[in-house]
Amino acid sequence: MSIAPLSLADALVDVGTDIDTRLDSLIAIPDDARAPLYRAMRHAAIGGGKRLRPLLVAATGRLFAVDRDCVGRAGMAIECVHVYSLIHDDLPAMDNDDMRRGKPTVHKAFDEATAILAGDCLHALAFEILADPATHADPFVRSELVLDLARAAGPAGMAGGQAMDLEAEKSTFDLPTVTRLQAMKTGALIACSVEAGAILGKLPPEGRTGLRGYARDLGLAFQIADDILDVEGDEAAVGKKLHKDAGAGKETFLSLLGLPRAREQARMLVDQAIDHLKHYGPEADLLREIARFTLERDR
Amino acid sequence: MSIAPLSLADALVDVGTDIDTRLDSLIAIPDDARAPLYRAMRHAAIGGGKRLRPLLVAATGRLFAVDRDCVGRAGMAIECVHVYSLIHDDLPAMDNDDMRRGKPTVHKAFDEATAILAGDCLHALAFEILADPATHADPFVRSELVLDLARAAGPAGMAGGQAMDLEAEKSTFDLPTVTRLQAMKTGALIACSVEAGAILGKLPPEGRTGLRGYARDLGLAFQIADDILDVEGDEAAVGKKLHKDAGAGKETFLSLLGLPRAREQARMLVDQAIDHLKHYGPEADLLREIARFTLERDR
Repeated sequence: MSIAPLSLADALVDVGTDIDTRLDSLIAIPDDARAPLYRAMRHAAIGGGKRLRPLLVAATGRLFAVDRDCVGRAGMAIECVHVYSLIHDDLPAMDNDDMRRGKPTVHKAFDEATAILAGDCLHALAFEILADPATHADPFVRSELVLDLARAAGPAGMAGGQAMDLEAEKSTFDLPTVTRLQAMKTGALIACSVEAGAILGKLPPEGRTGLRGYARDLGLAFQIADDILDVEGDEAAVGKKLHKDAGAGKETFLSLLGLPRAREQARMLVDQAIDHLKHYGPEADLLREIARFTLERDR
Repeated sequence: MSIAPLSLADALVDVGTDIDTRLDSLIAIPDDARAPLYRAMRHAAIGGGKRLRPLLVAATGRLFAVDRDCVGRAGMAIECVHVYSLIHDDLPAMDNDDMRRGKPTVHKAFDEATAILAGDCLHALAFEILADPATHADPFVRSELVLDLARAAGPAGMAGGQAMDLEAEKSTFDLPTVTRLQAMKTGALIACSVEAGAILGKLPPEGRTGLRGYARDLGLAFQIADDILDVEGDEAAVGKKLHKDAGAGKETFLSLLGLPRAREQARMLVDQAIDHLKHYGPEADLLREIARFTLERDR
């Protein structure tokens, strides 16, 4: 089966619209005392963000001609985990941020209790989506998606990375430690997005080496680009407070490598990520474009 | 296959020890910057609580001679969700509690950020446990377990009930609304525990009516008993702050029914719960004992 080429610009719009439509129906406001909770979830989840993770699920799913609805649902689930983590990370007890995606953070627009619960609900919804037969007819596929996302989200992945990040303000981390921290905090969910496309495509684990290499290098390049944006970015474009890492006295790729070497490292990682896709033809062009975009983005 | 009778007292000890052993190995402290996160999870999860939910999984699993390791793992997963909800509910922005299970709450013993992340990690671990092939060889069973727990934990269940509970301080809820709130906040996870035993036993959904009726009535009886303990209990035995509902101006079963009618209602619900088990023989005696215990407990 041949798949029509899709430009990154078209894919970004396509995935953005698709995710918003799905979330709009998933988080329809009920006519009871839970209405503020649902409004808070919608505030955080709908109409914002790059939707990088759902885009990666879709772009990887294209390699195996996975059904559009399957990749859309899996992408929405991973995005729900990403959004829940942003809500909790922004809380006063964590990073204490007032702005996110150009809007007030959830605890600012609502209150802290609602923010905590809205995050918890999106977290649970992610697994409800994946385990639902609508995501894939094969229960083995559903179960594998859940296992992979749970590992990526939990103490060995994203949340564990965030816990290390809290400790980073108190200690001095070296480059291998910062690399591991970022591989967990940001990399795990990016890797999970690519893996979900492969799981949906029923690619056996022994065939996933190239895609896993791509995802690992992409995740690190993405984080270095994020560190650079934190120093050089425009707050209005990025939509959140910048220059925070230096203020918090945290070691980052940038503080450890310096700007020229960090840029060089990110470029090398993107080349490496693309090289991991060498066994794929034009059907992987979208994945290649995503890798390049990582360095060019302004938000 | 005949199953030896098991007294409630023995079952409580047995399940308590089993869950602690499992959690001890699940949450082994890593030799890196995540150590405080893991210590916080252990503080909250190990060595405390009635373990009612794992007990219900085990007691229901007995009806179908489910493997001990399967019910143990499923029970641990549901207990992880229960414990995460206690950690988050105790936070200053939520119920602001200092004591839980006779120990300082997680944000008191550690800090708020660690408490938020420890809850998030236990939440993710619950789904990791259920989706792991070690919990059941059949991926359909694993997927059903995940779907049921995700629904019970999310906005249509436990977290949604907690959101309603926050609104309860601002509005005056009537008896049907309080019943629905409690069915979500406490009842959903209790129902999920019984359902998990049935799922592991491969009982088809159309055969689960009796068990679902049992779980629904047990959940409500449990909550009424909890309301009575809040007024009449001994703080040292219960291990947390009491007399909070009246202080917060919240309507409860007790405030709406008065003590004598609340007691009567709880007794009636327990009888009804037991009646739902009439098609089962002595293999359901443990479930019957659990229902009676609901009214007799002092914590």
